[in-house]
Amino acid sequence: MLARPIQKLIEVFTRLPGVGPKTAERFAIHLLKSGRGEVTRLEKALEELLQNIRSCELCHNFSDMTPCEICSDTKRDHALVCVVAEPQDVIAIEKTESFGGVYHVLRGLIDPLRDTGIEQMKIPELLARVRTDGVREIIFALDPTIEGETTVQYISAQLRGSGASLSKLATGIPSGGSIEYADEITLGSALKARQKIENATGS
Amino acid sequence: MLARPIQKLIEVFTRLPGVGPKTAERFAIHLLKSGRGEVTRLEKALEELLQNIRSCELCHNFSDMTPCEICSDTKRDHALVCVVAEPQDVIAIEKTESFGGVYHVLRGLIDPLRDTGIEQMKIPELLARVRTDGVREIIFALDPTIEGETTVQYISAQLRGSGASLSKLATGIPSGGSIEYADEITLGSALKARQKIENATGS
Repeated sequence: MLARPIQKLIEVFTRLPGVGPKTAERFAIHLLKSGRGEVTRLEKALEELLQNIRSCELCHNFSDMTPCEICSDTKRDHALVCVVAEPQDVIAIEKTESFGGVYHVLRGLIDPLRDTGIEQMKIPELLARVRTDGVREIIFALDPTIEGETTVQYISAQLRGSGASLSKLATGIPSGGSIEYADEITLGSALKARQKIENATGS
Repeated sequence: MLARPIQKLIEVFTRLPGVGPKTAERFAIHLLKSGRGEVTRLEKALEELLQNIRSCELCHNFSDMTPCEICSDTKRDHALVCVVAEPQDVIAIEKTESFGGVYHVLRGLIDPLRDTGIEQMKIPELLARVRTDGVREIIFALDPTIEGETTVQYISAQLRGSGASLSKLATGIPSGGSIEYADEITLGSALKARQKIENATGS
């Protein structure tokens, strides 16, 4: 009973992550009620995206210029590379304002159970950067999951003998979290990676 | 640190109902990763919407033709009008497959506390339909809220003497719901509107 153009838009909206038919219907009805201006606004934003967004040839993040803003920033330490899985991880780390190096976006993680996707990942590009760009230190900022750990292992093995120092993010109790409800693997790794507390009274 | 066209798209997405900055970011990154085809698909659906969707001049539902598919259906009872607040209510009622009349979409409800929006509502159009189109029966299918009840009261007063029979949807315990957790107003109205059970043994 819905006109075909509305049905079609709902169908396209359901392709967005986490959007079911009910939510897609709300989006479509919202646009219909907001009218021409709102629909045009979304159209224009999509068109600009198509026209202007490319992949940075160095870090493989999405950007409107290549090299991207971060890779062209001479104030950043280009010998310190943070390896992440996806563009949204760059956003998350930038928000901490505690990293002054550059990034390498792998565009995925190795899934040891499925054996797919690794060809699309930017691993050869990372190895090339380390070989030719004088990378001193690599920090893996990948999810502490089977996929993340496998990816760290795989790339680390390829980088053996490269001279770059490798590290990965600390795992442990999340800030504000509770020990009572932490899972045993998290708690175990938090214990192993316990941090020394500076004692004001000395010794 | 996000390229401006991505930021812009995220901003437009947050204007959709229930979409916060994090969800909008996921939508944008999803489109970026899916690539040109997916973005174009959404663009085209929006364009088709702009080109083809208008408001039905009879019921004020969105449609690609006017009168809309429902209003042009000669098999439906045009003297029986179901009054709803929004286009999505038409979809919900059509899904029940238990209504054979036509609709009138008010495009809103009267908010007695705010006193706004009533000018945009299609109330004069409903009164005109009743006066000129020989409407026999009106069913108000509005939310059982202050706004819904106020709207029913307001329109009913205007229709006094029109000869049309007026009713509203039954309120009561939702099918599959629990008496223990029903609020007192719902339970009270379910008691008052109790339905006679046909007794197989007669009397």
